[in-house]
Amino acid sequence: MTLKPGSAIGILGGGQLGRMLASAAAKLGFDVHVYCPEPRSPAARVAASHWDFDYDDADALKKFARACDLVTVEFENVPVAAARAIEAAGTPFCPGPRALEVAQDRAEEKTFLAGAGIAVAPWRPVDSLEDLRAAQAEIGPETILKTRRDGYDGKGQVRLGADANLAVAWDAVGQHPCILEQVVDFSLELSAIVARRADGVSASWEPPHNVHAGGILRTSRVPAPIGPQTKAQAIRSALDLADALDYVGVLALELFVMLDGSLIANEFAPRVHNSGHWTPEACDTDQFENHIRAIAGWPLGATTRFHDAEMINLIGEDVSVDPADLADGVSLTLYGKREARAGRKMGHIVRRIRVAETGPAGD
Amino acid sequence: MTLKPGSAIGILGGGQLGRMLASAAAKLGFDVHVYCPEPRSPAARVAASHWDFDYDDADALKKFARACDLVTVEFENVPVAAARAIEAAGTPFCPGPRALEVAQDRAEEKTFLAGAGIAVAPWRPVDSLEDLRAAQAEIGPETILKTRRDGYDGKGQVRLGADANLAVAWDAVGQHPCILEQVVDFSLELSAIVARRADGVSASWEPPHNVHAGGILRTSRVPAPIGPQTKAQAIRSALDLADALDYVGVLALELFVMLDGSLIANEFAPRVHNSGHWTPEACDTDQFENHIRAIAGWPLGATTRFHDAEMINLIGEDVSVDPADLADGVSLTLYGKREARAGRKMGHIVRRIRVAETGPAGD
Repeated sequence: MTLKPGSAIGILGGGQLGRMLASAAAKLGFDVHVYCPEPRSPAARVAASHWDFDYDDADALKKFARACDLVTVEFENVPVAAARAIEAAGTPFCPGPRALEVAQDRAEEKTFLAGAGIAVAPWRPVDSLEDLRAAQAEIGPETILKTRRDGYDGKGQVRLGADANLAVAWDAVGQHPCILEQVVDFSLELSAIVARRADGVSASWEPPHNVHAGGILRTSRVPAPIGPQTKAQAIRSALDLADALDYVGVLALELFVMLDGSLIANEFAPRVHNSGHWTPEACDTDQFENHIRAIAGWPLGATTRFHDAEMINLIGEDVSVDPADLADGVSLTLYGKREARAGRKMGHIVRRIRVAETGPAGD
Repeated sequence: MTLKPGSAIGILGGGQLGRMLASAAAKLGFDVHVYCPEPRSPAARVAASHWDFDYDDADALKKFARACDLVTVEFENVPVAAARAIEAAGTPFCPGPRALEVAQDRAEEKTFLAGAGIAVAPWRPVDSLEDLRAAQAEIGPETILKTRRDGYDGKGQVRLGADANLAVAWDAVGQHPCILEQVVDFSLELSAIVARRADGVSASWEPPHNVHAGGILRTSRVPAPIGPQTKAQAIRSALDLADALDYVGVLALELFVMLDGSLIANEFAPRVHNSGHWTPEACDTDQFENHIRAIAGWPLGATTRFHDAEMINLIGEDVSVDPADLADGVSLTLYGKREARAGRKMGHIVRRIRVAETGPAGD
């Protein structure tokens, strides 16, 4: 299926990723409709219409589906039932409910990654305090307890050590179903971002080097200080995952580079990704446009990287930075959020550091 | 005055320039409101709200002005009275009513350009067939008769030669007030695109080489085949004009490069310009973002050009081109217009030809 220019693309979710996707879709001549139960969301401010309904409003979902030629998502915690309701109304849903289902449950995710031949850190499912004690004894003491569902930006996670009080930790995650994951001794964090069409044609960007603090991405930088084999393997893993999911759109796989150079997958996002926010400033085609191209069945754009670049998130109070303080050669993107709460992603800046050594014919 | 992120920017006009301005404003965290008496305009589809009222609706204009922190325009034929109504409601209007007034009347425009020290081709005002006969005798035979008002993309123009029937020509322009302009023997057409803030700080882009056909811009290419002096003079002329108008925002001055290398101004546009549509793909900061930065009182972004580039307009039926036929390395922008009428600008493509020889330190 190929969407014609002028077709209506629906986005479930109204955050900054939806905002940037909506602008990318508009550039290609599409009409964008945003479905988001929030009266004033970043994406809805740049779309042709805003559907302000709950994700479990079956009637609204059906009408939304019928108003759209295709529907996609901008965050992975959209209820799978909503995605299925879109499909039931006869409208294609990208990347497909299965990808959401897997991404929404850390236990399913780890199992799926391993099944696709992608290494993950040792982990155990934890459904009770007893499970937690057993798992900690097996793969501890340096571990992270993570809720299986609804975690993002470091929320729903507790770091454990040798003298951790497991009962307190279990309460801290609300006694929700969890996984316990071994902390691995990595040298750096990467992400591999790929775009895949329904027919399997794919594109990938240079994997950025990501730095987190407090569970939140702070910076992404390209090129990462890795060799060509590590880079190729990172991209290969993300493409294997996309193939295994029969995925349509952009997907990001977060990876740890171990001290021996091997890679371990952390998690994936079935959507465009914060660590790809440098692509509009540094690449021929960015992650947002190629997501739209992939779901529309259009040829993917070249992902040639023209610049070395660094993306820096503006989080919470950071955004009170006066634009006048920004140096030349820095590209600013703000998400139009009203309240700068602590830990909230308000925008990002991208520094073009220099022309990529590989030049336009590079990776 | 400096606009804070989150402020509301109003745009008078709903075409593709407004669409691209709206996306640029959204990138900087602004909220965009589009005023355009057309139910389904390209810009309104990517804005927070659409005010579908006539340009002479004083009440609607006043309410619009009060809903916005600042108002700008995306086409020069917005009635000057509408701009004055915005200002009367206490809301800043950029670039200012004077720039619109001058740009809307070819006689005023030529006079103003000459007054700013910018050479123009010989011309005469024509208010009657008698005027036309006299003017043609003085500066003919190779001339163009142009209506003083409401001409764009070659509309309202008649080319005259030695055996022209002046009565027929006068009827062809509806006997509206006109100017008669001598056809000059130029070697190529350029435009100089500059951004200027209220405090006089300015930025400029590399002047593109423009090729028109049928009065409509077909291609713009950078770098133009001109020397550094011609380039500097083109930019200087545009900056002189912006200074003379006390202009705020982006302005484009169309110029002829004569056979002897001197420059003659054709006309200017008090807005972002079709011949600057390659700037998003080739420059650090594009014309749309710097227009928003200029009117918001923000620092202007660097206009460093990273690529040689060619912009090709997709006009009328051109847009039936299948996206699958587009070669790699071509960036496509479509305006979301429903009907592809002959001569209607439907979108454009930009080819990044190669990395600019000047590299990132170039202009």
